[in-house]
Amino acid sequence: MKRIKLMVNGIPGNMAVNAAEHALRDERFELMPWSFTGPEITESEYVIAGLAIRLTRPDTRDQIIADIKRSEGAFITADYTHPSAVNANAEFYCRNSLPFVMGTTGGDRKRLSETVKGSDISAVIAPNMAKQIVGFQAMMEYAADTFPGLFEGYSLEIKESHQKGKADTSGTAKSMVQYFNKMGISFSENDIVKERDPEIQKSVWGIPEDCLKGHGWHTYTLVSQDKSLKFEFTHNINGRDAYARGTLDAAVFLSKKAAEGIKGKVYSMTDVLKGK
Amino acid sequence: MKRIKLMVNGIPGNMAVNAAEHALRDERFELMPWSFTGPEITESEYVIAGLAIRLTRPDTRDQIIADIKRSEGAFITADYTHPSAVNANAEFYCRNSLPFVMGTTGGDRKRLSETVKGSDISAVIAPNMAKQIVGFQAMMEYAADTFPGLFEGYSLEIKESHQKGKADTSGTAKSMVQYFNKMGISFSENDIVKERDPEIQKSVWGIPEDCLKGHGWHTYTLVSQDKSLKFEFTHNINGRDAYARGTLDAAVFLSKKAAEGIKGKVYSMTDVLKGK
Repeated sequence: MKRIKLMVNGIPGNMAVNAAEHALRDERFELMPWSFTGPEITESEYVIAGLAIRLTRPDTRDQIIADIKRSEGAFITADYTHPSAVNANAEFYCRNSLPFVMGTTGGDRKRLSETVKGSDISAVIAPNMAKQIVGFQAMMEYAADTFPGLFEGYSLEIKESHQKGKADTSGTAKSMVQYFNKMGISFSENDIVKERDPEIQKSVWGIPEDCLKGHGWHTYTLVSQDKSLKFEFTHNINGRDAYARGTLDAAVFLSKKAAEGIKGKVYSMTDVLKGK
Repeated sequence: MKRIKLMVNGIPGNMAVNAAEHALRDERFELMPWSFTGPEITESEYVIAGLAIRLTRPDTRDQIIADIKRSEGAFITADYTHPSAVNANAEFYCRNSLPFVMGTTGGDRKRLSETVKGSDISAVIAPNMAKQIVGFQAMMEYAADTFPGLFEGYSLEIKESHQKGKADTSGTAKSMVQYFNKMGISFSENDIVKERDPEIQKSVWGIPEDCLKGHGWHTYTLVSQDKSLKFEFTHNINGRDAYARGTLDAAVFLSKKAAEGIKGKVYSMTDVLKGK
């Protein structure tokens, strides 16, 4: 079987490096020695397991992309960059016909989808790449669609903790808010309690020391009006391996869709999970 | 609108009394002054809010049922009796063409369904009548059907606590086991950790004193093979009001089905929730 060529953008960011490391160890992939990175990055190269990855900042990527496409042919892009770069990156990928997996959260998500829909490529866009978490999100979406108003009169608390560097509120938590709204609960994204302080994460949340630099813990607590019923859903993820594994599965899925010539379509991780 | 006549069997059991009390306060219902009860019950009458309910033991119910049917016409039966009585009661209801809501857990559930399917009545059968818990169960069933193997390699722990008098393992927890099995986890009903000791419930679980006599707390904990992902789902219910409310909604649903002449059909609380 031919290996899928994969470019991981956002190196030397932690998540991009982790995804690239997984791709290097995965027989389904050939990791490409290029990565588009942020304007603040001063290194021009990053070495992963002996492979030198050339880092290209936004101001020069337009010059280099034609060369890359000419020499590499078709490939899949995985984006683990920064919320502020999401839309510009997507527009760049679409303009250059690069099917992409968007693992970066934030940005204008509606515009992101529209950019893909108006282009001649397809993309997998998901605020969370960990398959079991995506399965849990799909459960909540199903409940919201099937039983609207199920939790009418309930109060809701959403708490999430991520590593200090994560700029925005958890995309997973935000996507849950809309499902809870459909199920009858008045709650806004701004009500999400966000923890980024490593000291509190350690002492109050009990997050292991070695995971302070990479974790995503979420708890949703629902209490009925008369306080007689309580529901609590928790998903805690330590490290980044589960995301990296999911990203690669998404890339395999997207590679098939690209080979089938499917254009302008936005896929979710639920589509990847179902394999359809 | 004509009130639905409702007979609640299992009085003076706590759950039956609670359901009867709710029916008395609910304009949709007329509570009937009869209740079929267990052979161990010595009282012949139980008074709820001024209404004397006549208690009938199994050995004499065959004599009285023809009279009740003659004088009352069509009615709905709600069964909150004992696991050991489930199948004999269902056979009695079917033999006498009494559509019923089975709120009692335990017994031979397969035979229970078959009894209804071979009869000329329909029934709502659900191990749990609390609507939000049923919604949560439906979510898990959806995930099991849509994403089989989602939690492959995960370990599972199920813990449940109920009031001291509850004889069997939680029916809700048991129904969850099959969903987790479908999602790739090897787990048997016997692995469910069952708590019935009020002292431990109070000191270890933190269950409020006034709920020790009526509660249903459940926690499902899933941990990935590499321990980097943890999912935890909890549903805690104090008292019996949520079950009683659900039972009455099920009775309304079943009454409509009976009026439509639907026979031999087993409905779940999910059907009741969807209203279809």
